[in-house]
Formats: sequence, C-alpha cells, structure tokens
Amino acid sequence: MTVHSRPAPAVVLGQNQYGKAECHVVRITRNGATHHIKDLDVSIALSGDLEEVHLSGSNANCLPTDTMKNTVYAFAKQHGIESAEQFGMLLARHFVTGQGPIKRARVRIAEHAWERNDGGGRAGAAVGHSFVRKGQETRLAQVTFDGERSQVVSGLKDLVVLNSTNSEFWGYIKDEYTTLEETWDRVLATEVSARWRFSWTGEPRPEPAWDRSYQQVRADMLRAFAETYSLSLQQTLYEMGARVIAGSDEVAEIDEVRFSLPNKHHFLVDLKPFGLENDTADSAVYHASDRPYGLIEATVLREGAEAGIPLDLTNL
Amino acid sequence: MTVHSRPAPAVVLGQNQYGKAECHVVRITRNGATHHIKDLDVSIALSGDLEEVHLSGSNANCLPTDTMKNTVYAFAKQHGIESAEQFGMLLARHFVTGQGPIKRARVRIAEHAWERNDGGGRAGAAVGHSFVRKGQETRLAQVTFDGERSQVVSGLKDLVVLNSTNSEFWGYIKDEYTTLEETWDRVLATEVSARWRFSWTGEPRPEPAWDRSYQQVRADMLRAFAETYSLSLQQTLYEMGARVIAGSDEVAEIDEVRFSLPNKHHFLVDLKPFGLENDTADSAVYHASDRPYGLIEATVLREGAEAGIPLDLTNL
Amino acid sequence: MTVHSRPAPAVVLGQNQYGKAECHVVRITRNGATHHIKDLDVSIALSGDLEEVHLSGSNANCLPTDTMKNTVYAFAKQHGIESAEQFGMLLARHFVTGQGPIKRARVRIAEHAWERNDGGGRAGAAVGHSFVRKGQETRLAQVTFDGERSQVVSGLKDLVVLNSTNSEFWGYIKDEYTTLEETWDRVLATEVSARWRFSWTGEPRPEPAWDRSYQQVRADMLRAFAETYSLSLQQTLYEMGARVIAGSDEVAEIDEVRFSLPNKHHFLVDLKPFGLENDTADSAVYHASDRPYGLIEATVLREGAEAGIPLDLTNL
Amino acid sequence: MTVHSRPAPAVVLGQNQYGKAECHVVRITRNGATHHIKDLDVSIALSGDLEEVHLSGSNANCLPTDTMKNTVYAFAKQHGIESAEQFGMLLARHFVTGQGPIKRARVRIAEHAWERNDGGGRAGAAVGHSFVRKGQETRLAQVTFDGERSQVVSGLKDLVVLNSTNSEFWGYIKDEYTTLEETWDRVLATEVSARWRFSWTGEPRPEPAWDRSYQQVRADMLRAFAETYSLSLQQTLYEMGARVIAGSDEVAEIDEVRFSLPNKHHFLVDLKPFGLENDTADSAVYHASDRPYGLIEATVLREGAEAGIPLDLTNL
Repeated sequence: MTVHSRPAPAVVLGQNQYGKAECHVVRITRNGATHHIKDLDVSIALSGDLEEVHLSGSNANCLPTDTMKNTVYAFAKQHGIESAEQFGMLLARHFVTGQGPIKRARVRIAEHAWERNDGGGRAGAAVGHSFVRKGQETRLAQVTFDGERSQVVSGLKDLVVLNSTNSEFWGYIKDEYTTLEETWDRVLATEVSARWRFSWTGEPRPEPAWDRSYQQVRADMLRAFAETYSLSLQQTLYEMGARVIAGSDEVAEIDEVRFSLPNKHHFLVDLKPFGLENDTADSAVYHASDRPYGLIEATVLREGAEAGIPLDLTNL
Repeated sequence: MTVHSRPAPAVVLGQNQYGKAECHVVRITRNGATHHIKDLDVSIALSGDLEEVHLSGSNANCLPTDTMKNTVYAFAKQHGIESAEQFGMLLARHFVTGQGPIKRARVRIAEHAWERNDGGGRAGAAVGHSFVRKGQETRLAQVTFDGERSQVVSGLKDLVVLNSTNSEFWGYIKDEYTTLEETWDRVLATEVSARWRFSWTGEPRPEPAWDRSYQQVRADMLRAFAETYSLSLQQTLYEMGARVIAGSDEVAEIDEVRFSLPNKHHFLVDLKPFGLENDTADSAVYHASDRPYGLIEATVLREGAEAGIPLDLTNL
Repeated sequence: MTVHSRPAPAVVLGQNQYGKAECHVVRITRNGATHHIKDLDVSIALSGDLEEVHLSGSNANCLPTDTMKNTVYAFAKQHGIESAEQFGMLLARHFVTGQGPIKRARVRIAEHAWERNDGGGRAGAAVGHSFVRKGQETRLAQVTFDGERSQVVSGLKDLVVLNSTNSEFWGYIKDEYTTLEETWDRVLATEVSARWRFSWTGEPRPEPAWDRSYQQVRADMLRAFAETYSLSLQQTLYEMGARVIAGSDEVAEIDEVRFSLPNKHHFLVDLKPFGLENDTADSAVYHASDRPYGLIEATVLREGAEAGIPLDLTNL
Repeated sequence: MTVHSRPAPAVVLGQNQYGKAECHVVRITRNGATHHIKDLDVSIALSGDLEEVHLSGSNANCLPTDTMKNTVYAFAKQHGIESAEQFGMLLARHFVTGQGPIKRARVRIAEHAWERNDGGGRAGAAVGHSFVRKGQETRLAQVTFDGERSQVVSGLKDLVVLNSTNSEFWGYIKDEYTTLEETWDRVLATEVSARWRFSWTGEPRPEPAWDRSYQQVRADMLRAFAETYSLSLQQTLYEMGARVIAGSDEVAEIDEVRFSLPNKHHFLVDLKPFGLENDTADSAVYHASDRPYGLIEATVLREGAEAGIPLDLTNL
C-alpha cells in the first residue's frame, strides 16, 4: 500500500446539520369537560456557522440538542399547537432568529391523530376526555426557514389503500427474463407515502389553513385512487398528483407533490392443483406478499414550478 | 470438566408443535359492483404422534407446512371466510380429522380491517371496490381443536387509548428507592392487548356470532376505559375485564379475559426552569415516553371458570 | 339481547402481575485504562396480595413501577452486575423479601454483548475504552423467586444459522393439498430462540457459573446444528436440545430446553425459463423468503424432569 | 371554495423512477466441502422515457419489476457475485444498455455478512457448510449508471460503537431554555450510518478492489472513533470522515463520505436520593435512552470534490 507515502489529502467539511430527533410532545387543552389533544413527534435540524464544532470541537456556536428539546416543550406550552405546520414554523424561526450562528432550521413533524372514544359506537354519550388513537396514516410536516423564506412541505405516510378491480397490467416490454403474465383484472394496493410543497413562502401572502388543506389533499388522493381506472400504478400515481395540484386553492396552493408507492402485490393463488378455479369474478383468493415489491416514485409539478422536495422518501 | 466422563443422561421429548406461520390470505367477494374484503394472517401449529420426526427424522407422520399453507388458500376459496374464528375452526378440524397422527391443532389468526374508501368524506358516492385499511387495532382469534372439543380465544392488540383526566395515583408503598410523587390528575394511556375465551366448546350448543361478539367486547372495553375513574391502571383493567364478562350473553358467553396493558407514560414536563407553570387545568404539556414503561397484566374470570388463556401475551 | 335482564355474573380476579419493563441499564467499570461494560434491559413482574389494587384501586400494597426502575439502577451501582442471572436474582429476592405483599418476582433480562473496538483488526493496539456492539444473538435470563426457591431460565434469541447442505426433506404425508417436491439437498436456516432451565433452585447447592454455562450451551447448540445430518428441522432441534442437556455439568445442570425455530426458507430459484440449470452442486441461487415460514417448537427434557418453561416463546 | 371555477392548472411530470425493491438473493458456492455464501438484498430503480406510463398508462416502455427480480436471480447464477458493488454494476449496465427507453439505473444493495460456524470456538474443526450470521453492521452499495458513467457509493449501517471515556461536552451556547450541565467525562455512543463515494467512474481507470476497500474504510472509521479525544460528536464525525478520505488509496480513491450519527445518549443516573455517588471513575451506572436523541449529519469531502451523496440518509 502506498497510502502513507502519499501526502495527506486536503479535506473539507461539506453540508452539515444537527439537532434533536423525535421529541414526542403531547398537549391537552381543556374546554370544560371536553378536552382536545395534539400529539407530535418533532425532529429539528439546524445548520449555520458550525465549522469549528467539527474541526476543533469548539462548541461556542453550538446550541445543545437538549436545549432544542426543552424549547419544543416550552413552546408547546407558551404558544400552543395550532397545527404541525404552524408549530414547526414557530420553532424554525426561533432558532434562526435567536442564534446568530444558526442560519437555517428544518423542523420535521410526525403527527398522530386521535379520535374521541365513543365506546365502540354503542349507546351513551362519549366522554370528553377519552380518546382512541386513529392509527391510520401518520401526518407529516416539514418547515424550513433560512432567515428570509419559509418552505412548507406537508405529507403523510402509512395510508394503505386497495382497489379490488379496475386495474390492468399488460403491453409491457418482454425481454429474455420476462415470465410475468399479462392481466386485465388485478388487485391494486399500495401504502401511500406523499409529500407536497406549498407555493407560500411567508408574508405578505396569507398563510394557508394547514388543517383544511391537509384534509383536502388527503381527500383528493383518496378520490383519485378510487376513481382512476388503472393501467399501471404509475398512472394512478400521476392522477393522484394532478388532483392534488388542481384541488389546491389560491391560498393553500400546492406546486409539487412527490409519491413513494410500494406495489403491495396481491397474487392470485394458483388453485388448479386442487381442482379449483380462482377467478376474480367469483370470490378470488390472493396471497398478500411482502417482499420483494415494486416501488414507484415520482414527482408531479404545477407547470413552471421548480422541484424542491427531496427525492428519497425512502432509503431503498 | 467432568462432562464427558459422566454417562450421557437420558433425554426425552416434551411438548412439541409445528406449522406454517403468517400465511397472509386475502379474499375478495363481489356483490355486483360492491366488493367485500377479508384479510387474514393465519398461523397453524399441529401436534400429535410426532416423536419420530424428532428422533430419527422420519417424516412419515409429518404433513409439510407447505401443505398447510396450500390448505389455507384452498379453504378460503372453497369455504369462504365468514369470520376469523369460523375459518380457524374449519382449518383446525380439517387437520385433526384428516390426518391420523395429528391429535391437536391450534390456529392463530390476525385480521386486518378495511373500511370503504369514501374519498375522505367529500361529496360523491363511494366506489364499491376501493378500500382503506382501518389501521387501528388488529383483531385476533385462536382456535384449538383436540378431536373432541374446540376452544376459542378471541382478542385484539394495538388499540391505543388515552384518558386525559380522571386518573390518580397515590397511597402506594414508599421504600428507600421511591422518588415518584403522588398525583391526583394524570394522563392514563395504554395500548390494549387482550384475549378472551368463550365457554362454548362445540355442538350441540349454538355457535356464537363471532363478529357481533367482537364488536360487543370491543365496545365494552372502550366504555369501561372511558367511564372508570381510575386510581390505578390495575383498577381500570379489572373494570374492563368485568364489563367484558358481564356484557357477554348466553350464546357468546365469555368465561375469561386476559390483558397486557403497558402504561404509556405521559410525563408532565417540568417547565419551571423557564418560568412556566405546567398545570393540567391549563393546557398541560407532556413528554410521551417510550421506555421503560409499566406493564400491567391480569386475568379476569367468571366465578367458577378455570383459567385457560396463556399467561404470556408478550414475552417481556 | 337478554344481557341486561340477566343478573350480573360474579367476576373474580385471576393471575396478575405488574412491573417495570425495559429498564435499560449500562454499567461501566474501569480497570485503569481498561474498561468493562455490562448492558442489560431489565423487565420486572411482581405478584402477591394485589387484589385491592384491582378491585378498589387502593395502592397500599403497590410498590410503584417507578421505584422498581430506581432499584435497578441503584442495585447496579451498589452490587454490580456479575451476570444477568445473578443480577436478576438479586432483584427478585429484594422485592420478595423487602415487601410483605409481594410474594413472587420474575425478572427478565436481555443482554447486549459488546466486543473491544480493535480498529477493524488493523495494526495498533486496541483502546481499552472503545467498544463495538457484537450485534449477534441477544442473551436472555429469567429469574423467578417465590420466597423459597429460585428458578433460573437462561436463553438467547436472534442467532441466525444456516447449513448449505446435509439437509433433506422427503417421505412426508401427501394429501390432496400437497404440492411440495421432495428434496435431498436443501439449505437449512433458522433464527434460534431458546430457553433452558437449570435444576439449581438455590442454596445449599453451589450456584452455577452462569457465564461459563452460557458459553457452553451456545457452543453445544452451534456444534449440534453444524454436525447433524438433517432429515427435518425437528430432528436438528432435538439434537441441539439433547446436546445442551448432555453438555451441562453437575453444577450447571440443565433439566429442560425449549426452542422456537422458524424455518427460514431458502427456495431454489427455478431458472429453467432462462435456459439455466440451478443445481446445488454448482453455485446454486436461492430466494430467501420471509413469510410465510415454518415454525418448529419443542421442549427437550432430562428424563424425569418436569417441564417448567412457558410454551409461548413467540406469540404466533 | 373557488377551486372549480378556476381553470385547471397545467400539470407536468417531474423526476420519476420505478423498480423492484428487496430482492433477497443468496448464492452458495461449493469448493469441495468448503462452501461460500453471498447474501444480498437488491433494490432496483430505473428511469428514462417513462412519461407515457404515467400519462396514458401505456406500458410500451415499461420493463416489469417482476422481470427485474428474475434478472437478479438469473444474473447471480450466470455471472456470480464477486462483491455487492460489482454485482450492482452488472445489473445497472444491463438495464440501461439492454432497453432503449431506460436511460438510468440505480441499484441499491444491502449485504448481510456470515461467518463460519466454529461451534462457539470449542475444540473440533469447523464444518465447511455451516454458517452464523455475523449480525453486526449491514454493508451497503449503491451503483448508478447513466449509459456513460458509473457512480459507486458504498456504505454501512447499524454499526453501534461506544467510548466509555475521552468525551467532553461544554462551552456551548446557553439560552433561556438551556438546562443541560456541562460534562468533562461522558459516554459517547452512536450507531454509524455512512456512505462514501468513489472517484472512480468507469474505464479506463482500474476498478477498485471493493471488498478490500470496504474493510479499509470500516477499519479507518473504527480507529478514528476509538482514537479521537472528543469535544463533540461532530468532531468525532469529522475525524472519521477525514480518516476515510486519507486512508483511501489511488485506486480505491474516495472523494466524499457522509454520516448520519444518532447520539445514543447514556445518561448518568442521579443516585443521590439513595445516598449513592455515581462517579464515572468508580463503576458508573447509566440509563441508555432511546428517544429523543441528538442526530448529527455531515459530509466530509476531498478538497475540490463536488458532493454527490444524497443528504437524507434517514428521513428524520
């Protein structure tokens, strides 16, 4: 090896950020006997004049991640949590404007939704202080602030959807390794992971109504998924994205949406060895397979908009 | 070491069972344009005259686990899936009555619930073939059959519930390692894992309506959780169990229920260092902590019934 | 429904236990510049005169789980951690002898092993204070104490092993749902989960050397797995169990061992459609499948011993 | 809402890719009685002229993900697996050169290492066909090919390391939310996730020896971690990165390395309430905390090199 005879190369620090991840804050507000709950998992990443903490270990410009955690809890008390986006914005601005060396903050939030415990829908009024975790999708929000502009990317993950018909797959390339048979009636199922970016970047434009916008986007995606007669999961994805962009209004205008959609394969089981037809028209039986799986990822943009959402929603 | 100079001890085979685990079967029935979906994860364990497969490796009495998997899919087609319990029963009986050496079958099923994709509740009729996974609790069923009697244990897991008040904790033992402060108003949250056993063991008694019973038990547990003014999670558990037993009717009679309830601690954050009171009456802020956690486990029985549910719902 | 017209059934409390789960304690001892590390995840479950905490919510007999957690950390400091078994025994005895209402304690411990960071095996002496987590199996220990006798069950999980030959599977039952082809050369792979119980139950017998015994058992299992020419995974399991019992010595005598062995299927891929033979003798290619999987569970006992290890090492 | 009265916005497709994820391929080579094993989890993502599959659902340019899976297994047989990087390169080139519409391929591979089952180190020769999964870090490789140039990013994850001393943390910013106390002797532990990019982009330069390079990088990181007297985890990260760049040689030259290092906090437990000093010099006891955690991420570059590794090694 010639390693040690070469002069040591000059090495430089590139992009860097640090922060506290997964601060799980729950805030409960009482309105008489009716309580309200906000349940957020907050992860903070700060960057700025942080060369020295890497090079010499001087922490003079370093706000401890423990302090960030404290700030999350204190801010939840002082300012409340109107929405994940608004709370993320408060935090991002605080760190950038409060500490000279910090030039940019990114706050990522995962929100768990709760619904009222209505006793399984049986008779008897729901109790105002009892909740059941909804347990469906996880709502996501990412706010970045660089001292001037805010960027808000909202999203969701873990939303599993399935169409039991109106999905075909045929007409694809057949090469020497192709054995897949074409199908004109398959199950189409996926676990939606999506992020969407708002054109809003701060005042003087009015701030979007984040919660209403979230419900709108979620509904648009679900409706597009249900209503699209699908020739490929890519086509369904595109329809979902187009609907999100079109469905956004002037205030909560969305410029871009990115999806990562695993194809949750449901394979029609071959029951011929047992003398059984397994026809989709007549109570078909499927094997729901975990791995491997198709993975379809794409961005859909408003014309003229520039892409800004990270490509890697998953690391596979 | 004297190991090798001792005569080798006589060794015998004890309890043993084998089977295929996690056969994920999905069955979709079409009622015109309205489809229905059943989504089960089936795990089978058989026992019987299986000494030789252990001692000499003779597989003469061994039905391959691959065959069990095939049977799950074929039965779903041939017999349909009325409920997890009924499907488990069909399978358990098949293996015991169909193969002489197999004396006992245990079938465990986890069921994932789906709801109709209603497009996020927006205008427009729901499409009859589009679904969203409910994603809340997982329904469980365990059926065992020994050639004569069936035993059915139903259950659920992953149901996260929270009361934001009406929970106290005080009056406990204080020893030299006790630092916990008493509280008269805390958050009480848990992730319910429960199993309940029916007194029904087969004909001639009429078979319980498993789905209706499941909804009844779930509702009873949720209502008991909401309505109990709690002095300890143990007390809440007991109320939930007593309600389940009392709520069961003559047909779907439940003799026993066992719970494993992690205490999902929500610690009131000390905000005094920042000059803030964090009072439960005024929008309190909590740190939701993962680990360590209290774990409360108990069985509640109808008087005179003998316990039959395994103690270990978790392996911690 | 006749539920409400029936008299409410009498309900009783059955087996119950409570405690703190997953107290992650790390203890570092310095021997000059050479440090030593013990890394345990401790879960405690106590039972005794705890009816009232369930029935009325009186906590008079209830030692808080928070106190148990404190005790874990304080005991690690005061008494050190010689081995998981010994530390579990200290804790179990403390709770039972220290608190009248507590009649039985069960302590379960998962231990993570660390090895010295030797810089990837390159030149240069290892630093005495730098460690890499071994990351192979997790060592387990369960100690129960009822005021008189101790019972020690040691174990491990997550140990993945594979034989690339010397495994056959044929001669099994073929019923109408059997499609599996017999094989005389397959991959045999599993993830070992095992628990073994010592005959030792306390003084005056000398206490086993827990760490040495653990290494012995682990070695016996690995050797039996490697050396057994296998006609079924059950046979391999039995050989592993018999070796463990035979390999134990008079002091660390093991009466019983239970295994839960998932059959980690490696399916020979059918490459004929691509004009390729996929023969085991010539660089065979396998698809490692996750689900479904065979699951083989059995207890192996010293003749005359009574089984005492819980059957459910997994809940599937 | 004014949504529907606005003209629908023009929508365009942005970055998109699709492929098969998590193809788990195992290849076993026999060298007489001595076998060798390669165990890879392969995920493929292709992009190119794929507009129509999104817009109209035409699959004319779409190679099925099922075909990609078949290709992985067939190539493992036909070409063998020399290393993850070399195998990824074969696949990436095949898809781009074999299918006109495919312009770019990215192959990500996770490799599981196995070591020989030596029977727990006891006497007796190891059997040549028995293996134990090493279970420490997971090796990673990412190859992208655009028809002209290859880019290779290697990496690892899940490598947990700990220094029990030689770590301080003080001199940081104190704002109104800071309560953390400074420390001159703390545990420093992290789970290393790293990716490094080679300057090599294809012929005519000689291809790096990927396996040797991997061992070199791993060793450099471990040594830098052990030898750095740390004033911040950032400083340790930088030393690890600088060592990797300096340690690379002319052939396997590394231009860039990115780390994502969670600070696995080990909090010194306050045992004063129990009359105990918990001093690092004398067998200190720590609580190993999961969440929240500090997360330190940075890129280290050879001077003059341009960054090319995605910033998001995790999605938090």
